[in-house]
Amino acid sequence: MLIVMENHATREQIDRVVKTIEEMGYSARPMPGETRTTVGLVGNDGRVDSSRVESLPGVAEVIHVSKPYKQVSREWKEKNTIVSLAPGVEFGGTDIVIIAGPCSVESEKQIVEAARVVRAAGAGALRGGAFKPRSSPYSFQGLGKPGLEMLALARRETGLPVVTEALDEEGAHLVAEYADCIQIGARNMQNYSLLRAVGRINKPVLLKRGMAATITDLLMSAEYILAEGNTQVILCERGIRSFDTLTRNLFDLTAIPIVQKLSHLPIIGDPSHGTGLRDKVIPMARAAVAAGADGVIVEVHPDPDHALSDGGQSLFPDQFARLVTELRAISSAIGRDVAPAPEFAGAGTAAGARA
Amino acid sequence: MLIVMENHATREQIDRVVKTIEEMGYSARPMPGETRTTVGLVGNDGRVDSSRVESLPGVAEVIHVSKPYKQVSREWKEKNTIVSLAPGVEFGGTDIVIIAGPCSVESEKQIVEAARVVRAAGAGALRGGAFKPRSSPYSFQGLGKPGLEMLALARRETGLPVVTEALDEEGAHLVAEYADCIQIGARNMQNYSLLRAVGRINKPVLLKRGMAATITDLLMSAEYILAEGNTQVILCERGIRSFDTLTRNLFDLTAIPIVQKLSHLPIIGDPSHGTGLRDKVIPMARAAVAAGADGVIVEVHPDPDHALSDGGQSLFPDQFARLVTELRAISSAIGRDVAPAPEFAGAGTAAGARA
Amino acid sequence: MLIVMENHATREQIDRVVKTIEEMGYSARPMPGETRTTVGLVGNDGRVDSSRVESLPGVAEVIHVSKPYKQVSREWKEKNTIVSLAPGVEFGGTDIVIIAGPCSVESEKQIVEAARVVRAAGAGALRGGAFKPRSSPYSFQGLGKPGLEMLALARRETGLPVVTEALDEEGAHLVAEYADCIQIGARNMQNYSLLRAVGRINKPVLLKRGMAATITDLLMSAEYILAEGNTQVILCERGIRSFDTLTRNLFDLTAIPIVQKLSHLPIIGDPSHGTGLRDKVIPMARAAVAAGADGVIVEVHPDPDHALSDGGQSLFPDQFARLVTELRAISSAIGRDVAPAPEFAGAGTAAGARA
Amino acid sequence: MLIVMENHATREQIDRVVKTIEEMGYSARPMPGETRTTVGLVGNDGRVDSSRVESLPGVAEVIHVSKPYKQVSREWKEKNTIVSLAPGVEFGGTDIVIIAGPCSVESEKQIVEAARVVRAAGAGALRGGAFKPRSSPYSFQGLGKPGLEMLALARRETGLPVVTEALDEEGAHLVAEYADCIQIGARNMQNYSLLRAVGRINKPVLLKRGMAATITDLLMSAEYILAEGNTQVILCERGIRSFDTLTRNLFDLTAIPIVQKLSHLPIIGDPSHGTGLRDKVIPMARAAVAAGADGVIVEVHPDPDHALSDGGQSLFPDQFARLVTELRAISSAIGRDVAPAPEFAGAGTAAGARA
Repeated sequence: MLIVMENHATREQIDRVVKTIEEMGYSARPMPGETRTTVGLVGNDGRVDSSRVESLPGVAEVIHVSKPYKQVSREWKEKNTIVSLAPGVEFGGTDIVIIAGPCSVESEKQIVEAARVVRAAGAGALRGGAFKPRSSPYSFQGLGKPGLEMLALARRETGLPVVTEALDEEGAHLVAEYADCIQIGARNMQNYSLLRAVGRINKPVLLKRGMAATITDLLMSAEYILAEGNTQVILCERGIRSFDTLTRNLFDLTAIPIVQKLSHLPIIGDPSHGTGLRDKVIPMARAAVAAGADGVIVEVHPDPDHALSDGGQSLFPDQFARLVTELRAISSAIGRDVAPAPEFAGAGTAAGARA
Repeated sequence: MLIVMENHATREQIDRVVKTIEEMGYSARPMPGETRTTVGLVGNDGRVDSSRVESLPGVAEVIHVSKPYKQVSREWKEKNTIVSLAPGVEFGGTDIVIIAGPCSVESEKQIVEAARVVRAAGAGALRGGAFKPRSSPYSFQGLGKPGLEMLALARRETGLPVVTEALDEEGAHLVAEYADCIQIGARNMQNYSLLRAVGRINKPVLLKRGMAATITDLLMSAEYILAEGNTQVILCERGIRSFDTLTRNLFDLTAIPIVQKLSHLPIIGDPSHGTGLRDKVIPMARAAVAAGADGVIVEVHPDPDHALSDGGQSLFPDQFARLVTELRAISSAIGRDVAPAPEFAGAGTAAGARA
Repeated sequence: MLIVMENHATREQIDRVVKTIEEMGYSARPMPGETRTTVGLVGNDGRVDSSRVESLPGVAEVIHVSKPYKQVSREWKEKNTIVSLAPGVEFGGTDIVIIAGPCSVESEKQIVEAARVVRAAGAGALRGGAFKPRSSPYSFQGLGKPGLEMLALARRETGLPVVTEALDEEGAHLVAEYADCIQIGARNMQNYSLLRAVGRINKPVLLKRGMAATITDLLMSAEYILAEGNTQVILCERGIRSFDTLTRNLFDLTAIPIVQKLSHLPIIGDPSHGTGLRDKVIPMARAAVAAGADGVIVEVHPDPDHALSDGGQSLFPDQFARLVTELRAISSAIGRDVAPAPEFAGAGTAAGARA
Repeated sequence: MLIVMENHATREQIDRVVKTIEEMGYSARPMPGETRTTVGLVGNDGRVDSSRVESLPGVAEVIHVSKPYKQVSREWKEKNTIVSLAPGVEFGGTDIVIIAGPCSVESEKQIVEAARVVRAAGAGALRGGAFKPRSSPYSFQGLGKPGLEMLALARRETGLPVVTEALDEEGAHLVAEYADCIQIGARNMQNYSLLRAVGRINKPVLLKRGMAATITDLLMSAEYILAEGNTQVILCERGIRSFDTLTRNLFDLTAIPIVQKLSHLPIIGDPSHGTGLRDKVIPMARAAVAAGADGVIVEVHPDPDHALSDGGQSLFPDQFARLVTELRAISSAIGRDVAPAPEFAGAGTAAGARA
């Protein structure tokens, strides 16, 4: 941490900064410059409360040199973390993984059909919400536990691992029981109680960027999960808030190479929420892969015109199939590949297992 | 809801929109214009999933005419809701209320001293965090339940009602036991599980605006609380995310008169978090009151230089005393007044009650 | 300037940074820390192109310690600059000045009536656009030079100094001929050719903050004017772009005390454009004064219902009169006063002077 | 335009809205709904000043149904506009065009070498600034007219058409004399005097999106150019302002498919300014092409370490060559191709022409 003094700061003011730093248990190193003095704080363990120094007289600015996160940093661990949802369905390696499925689980028939359709087209994992965070208390809130059971059925029928959202600690434990990856949505990115809870569960977590979250905020939220012992975290760019209302969110694809430089964790893109518009999902999914994403998560519905939620941003099955073909070509243009769907002995066996 | 067709939309496309609206259970009213047709959806009960219509061929745009919130709206209830934390400490009437106290509860001595100081200067309620949402898992996270006990002690010693934050459902029940108002922080503004939980507790709630929340989002989150039966909600503007990093947040004071027009709920301003800088707290607290806020919540610490958190945005006791004097003058300039501190028989009695 | 090295930066990488700094003509001072080395660049004259160092291998981040502006800074000139439009109409002293008038000059009758109305209510200067920057090429673009002549007439009839916008260099010279202050609008805040042009004209300039401009950007644009020799600059906060569309812009009142700390130039608030809504102009004008603004600029129209532009954000004459009364009370609450209208011998004399 | 009344609006209030619309010369069509009445304004020619209606009593909201732009709209002209800078260097067709070159023209040697390098790697046009809009008045402002002469020389030596920025009307005429395309930078996107000036010059214009500009704003600025008669406009996404300072701007790639749906004008991406960081230029250039951009404009410098401006975001020649190869592969993945460099008889001939 560097404390920049005003250019007419007095000797006493500089001394007081030095003394305060020492009282806080760190060492201070004043560095006189041409026009102003800068005081370095040495020994920062990431717990320094800068606001205390910031308001001392004569201080112009406090500059943070150390990054506030540790375990998520590439300086902490240089090699990519590989997060696996099923054999061959791995995020963070050379292959990119496509997660697809409807916004909400609506019925056994709908989710199983969706799973078959997306598997056939080339998806590596199935998405579908059982607990839905809706901005209106009067909107459809998801099927809850029965929805989780339907997701588990779809997995048995297709072999696709399942990603689904949890809204609170109780829900996280339920999701962990039925699914392969616990999604934390954008609205809960700084719900620290929930982050701690999933940090103590031994399941991969898909952590979505909040609408007002900087990349540093996103990494700090991931740090909460790692700090509790769970290192299986996949990050997800899904659009941030901006001033143009022609799109629901502003899909920040530059975040992808930035996160990959700063952190060892994999990062994927969500063009469905990132844009909110079906005909923008396809170009932006392609752009996410071209930008280097380790995967994409896309809303696909067997019958979007009758979806209970977000129908307008869901792809039709044939659109999704064409998209996968394009993503394969783009992956190969940058030396990567789309991961194949996980091996699967067939619904017969699964059905047998169910019986 | 209005569905604006493209100007070369065909008869068939318009018919399909009409049919879809009817399938959803509403009536459609096509209105041909000079260059394009608009289709009105009549009977909107606030549950229409517009995305389904939005993606039909020939649709240029879907426009929401009805507001998505109901019970928080001034159209639902015309008169101001008055939220009372203690006799005479009322938000939403003519008087404005000043909530003051430290960022975190640190010790019995600190919080009782803070309570005395802010009461003496003119505060109507005490703030202080026992559960702290910190962006780093390694920062001080608050004293938890012992902190709540200290707050209750400070109330007994000064008569000031207490406002403190809850981070999850379990915490909300604890806070309700010890304090007079449950604060939901900006990061949890869309934590719907928590909103529902406090909606079922019979205690006033202070709901802070999220960093990326529009005013409509804030009102929708309040709607979650009212929908569960709790109408005692105070809203709070505390700064939103913007592009200039000279301030921690952008304090959006225009939100105050806007909320007051749209909703019957009281709204206060938080200049401490709204700016993040001590020397901006004073002018911006004045500005909040001049803009019509029903109160302000201000960080004051008996000894800011040694605060465990946010010391740099906490006022010194004498600064706070001067601020209250200025707020009185500004209130009176616009025909309002600062509410007096609640009547209090004295620490002796309270101590007696404790014994 | 400080160059923060990655924590595993090699000796060679640090040496290359040092060498590059020296090649650029500055001195380098490496400071090894606990986990990483920081290299200070000494002798920064504000012309260093940091991008050259930023991309050297091993560099994690470049931090700017010196402010990029000079002459506008309070470190350059400690005392407030006082900008005078007429005797007694001074920005930057104890008194605050109210500039008022219609969005556009529409006719002799309209602008003279507006000038009389706002003078009677307590305004110190008259605003009114002759050159209008409209987002549509098909909208009313202002009366041009005849509009300037009407403004000059209104000044002769009322004694109020006149503020009006220029859109290009040619227009700036015309405005300087007829008016007392050249306004540079938000859209031209970084039109450097125009800034240079008004920097060479000996007239006060009212520089509005651009919609995406940080406070530093605003000060840098003012620096362009001062660098050409014109120090008579009044800054103006008029709302920036944000994500909530309930207001046209987000009125950033915290900018006012921040600018006053960083710069010696006066700053005023424009609540009409800052909010875009008539019933928000009054509370936000009050808030601007409470936040410490050196003045406000408010749209007032003798007959807003028939205004040619921005009628919906213009105050009615009686609303403006009440507002001035409130602003007087708020000014006095913070130890300031509203400047009286400039002395004026009367329309008779002026009319005589005209004859 | 639709005027939504409050749900308790009186008969008189509705009548006043109707009368006001008729006074403005349009027809009004009231549409009673379940809870509120909406009044349609019929005959909107794009000149309606909505603010006049917006502030009438009983009006809740005014909704714009017509788009404010005309000639730039795809509803005005359905087929893509093709803008040609040289034979075969066409924007808006199947091929994508790569514009490359240094931030600033520094010397004959530098710009000719840059032109050769980028042509050899596959660029179709040369960029390079002679007039530079710098945020500091003390920074290098470009070589001016001599810089334009050097660009013309580089064209003679390589056959590449030249794109360069103009900052004012005088500069636009000079640029038109020497170059093949006049660039209007982000800071001047709403400099309407300049837009009108280039609208009257018969040269292609590259119009960059402003930092706070919505897509509608960008199209409205293009409308200014078309309204003066110049239809040869290429739009350019170059990043907008957002809250995360890890990148200089937020590169909004979703703008590309959105503009292509709304307008017939070609649009390209500028990943150099869009990100401000060299190692993000390559992935984001790929992403722009994958999102469907009609071209990219990339900063390449023969020796970035010694560039006079923006060295840190300029690619090294070999990086650029690899990028072109990747862009070819991605173009082909979506059924497009990178346009070949324009045919060129050789420097000899050009040199002859010079003599």
